[in-house]
Amino acid sequence: MSVQVTSSESCVVISGVGLIGGSIAAAIRSRNPACRIIGVGRSPARLEEAVRRGLLDEYRSGDLSGGSFPESALGIACLPVNQIVPAAGALLRAGCGFVTDAGSVKAPICTAFDNEARFVGSHPIAGSELNGFEAAEATLFERRVCVVTPNERFHADSAYTLNTSRVAAFWTSLGLDVVQMSPSEHDRILALTSHLPHVLASVAAGCLTPEMLPLTGTGFRDTTRIAAGSAAVWTSILNDNAEHCMAAIQLAEDRLAQFRTALKQQDIVALTELWNQGAELRGRLDQAR
Amino acid sequence: MSVQVTSSESCVVISGVGLIGGSIAAAIRSRNPACRIIGVGRSPARLEEAVRRGLLDEYRSGDLSGGSFPESALGIACLPVNQIVPAAGALLRAGCGFVTDAGSVKAPICTAFDNEARFVGSHPIAGSELNGFEAAEATLFERRVCVVTPNERFHADSAYTLNTSRVAAFWTSLGLDVVQMSPSEHDRILALTSHLPHVLASVAAGCLTPEMLPLTGTGFRDTTRIAAGSAAVWTSILNDNAEHCMAAIQLAEDRLAQFRTALKQQDIVALTELWNQGAELRGRLDQAR
Repeated sequence: MSVQVTSSESCVVISGVGLIGGSIAAAIRSRNPACRIIGVGRSPARLEEAVRRGLLDEYRSGDLSGGSFPESALGIACLPVNQIVPAAGALLRAGCGFVTDAGSVKAPICTAFDNEARFVGSHPIAGSELNGFEAAEATLFERRVCVVTPNERFHADSAYTLNTSRVAAFWTSLGLDVVQMSPSEHDRILALTSHLPHVLASVAAGCLTPEMLPLTGTGFRDTTRIAAGSAAVWTSILNDNAEHCMAAIQLAEDRLAQFRTALKQQDIVALTELWNQGAELRGRLDQAR
Repeated sequence: MSVQVTSSESCVVISGVGLIGGSIAAAIRSRNPACRIIGVGRSPARLEEAVRRGLLDEYRSGDLSGGSFPESALGIACLPVNQIVPAAGALLRAGCGFVTDAGSVKAPICTAFDNEARFVGSHPIAGSELNGFEAAEATLFERRVCVVTPNERFHADSAYTLNTSRVAAFWTSLGLDVVQMSPSEHDRILALTSHLPHVLASVAAGCLTPEMLPLTGTGFRDTTRIAAGSAAVWTSILNDNAEHCMAAIQLAEDRLAQFRTALKQQDIVALTELWNQGAELRGRLDQAR
């Protein structure tokens, strides 16, 4: 039995109407049709098109200082991670009562808002290698996990706690399961569960030359799918989570060296053990779903 | 427009009725219903079940020396690569007029049959992380590539050339595009297009601990799908193609170190270039299909 959680948001401001921002808009439309959705971005033509497609009710482009959003509005910055801090700051200054984001890295963003009691970080773990709101899907977030990373220094602030619950309820209303942890714990884990797999997929693709492509199978196709993602998005994520990503990449290098050593020594027992560690972990994922 | 190539095989003997052998049987059934299909394997109960499901007409289990197959029969060894040489040898001794295989590594197998004018190596590049004929699909080979690796020393032997063409026509009749190259060239390329991606998928999964699984997304799921493959199958492939696989793994380690160095130096230009090399290669794959 699936329980549909409703969100009482009456106005959501989405800064960055791409795949994620557009999918949030589409999911709100399908689950909370009374909610007013305002888009914010650089290109009036693109935002106009998002209105035409029914994703947005209205939009603002360029300088936001001229007007103000209703204080009841929840702002969400849905941009590449290195653009989130200025975008979320602009939403706060333009009057959004509370602001969150959808960035894949949390510590640098949350640190920038360390003194801001109207911001909480979020990361809905969903996406695709596609870009732009043309690829938006109202179902993108269904049965996915959203990490919310509250600011420890406001843990005794009841208004902050209430707004954190409000953000959690908003994500839950789009179909996500919400878990809470610290920004640095999020970044350490995501370096392994998401950022490293993207680097490994990129490496798997980058080791080939084009004339080898006809001799690839479905394994190569699936393993490298996410290597086709946007360079701007992914270099920004890796760079903003550099310390944890370097450690994760080193871990992968060590593991590859273990495979290589086992092959050199024709050590089938070691090779089998290495393989089975990965296979067992991957098997748990299928069991869990 | 799709041209259906028909194969005139009247009898095919499949040694090893698992995912690949079973899918070959299913594809023959759908495209050449008059062909008699004989299964060979260790377990009478399993082979009986494959007959019951309509994949096989009959089967032989255990020692093949007692009876003989028709000289017109094409034998195909569909086993883990380290079991192919004895299995193909048994098919030849039991009377199959010509024998091929479906192994993912070619040089060790073809070298073992260097003096045998009734064997040619094949590798239909198709598969899945599933095992057993229960997962067999008649469409597994459609629009995939099959590499056939003829023995250079028989290039002037017209009977061998004719039988090589016969094997190529057989794979074409199942929906595959056939390309020919030497066994070692096949192994060098497949180390990069298939064996390395499997190791990278395994490493991506092996770097996680189970409690991290809820924080994985569709990227991790797709990138690691093939890590769930059979350890017996994959350690055998990697070990039988050890030299090329070690070189491929080293290439991946070097590339990972380049990512790590770019991150350490906060060199976004280098990071972008590394990312784009993989993204561009992967983009070509989508364009080609």
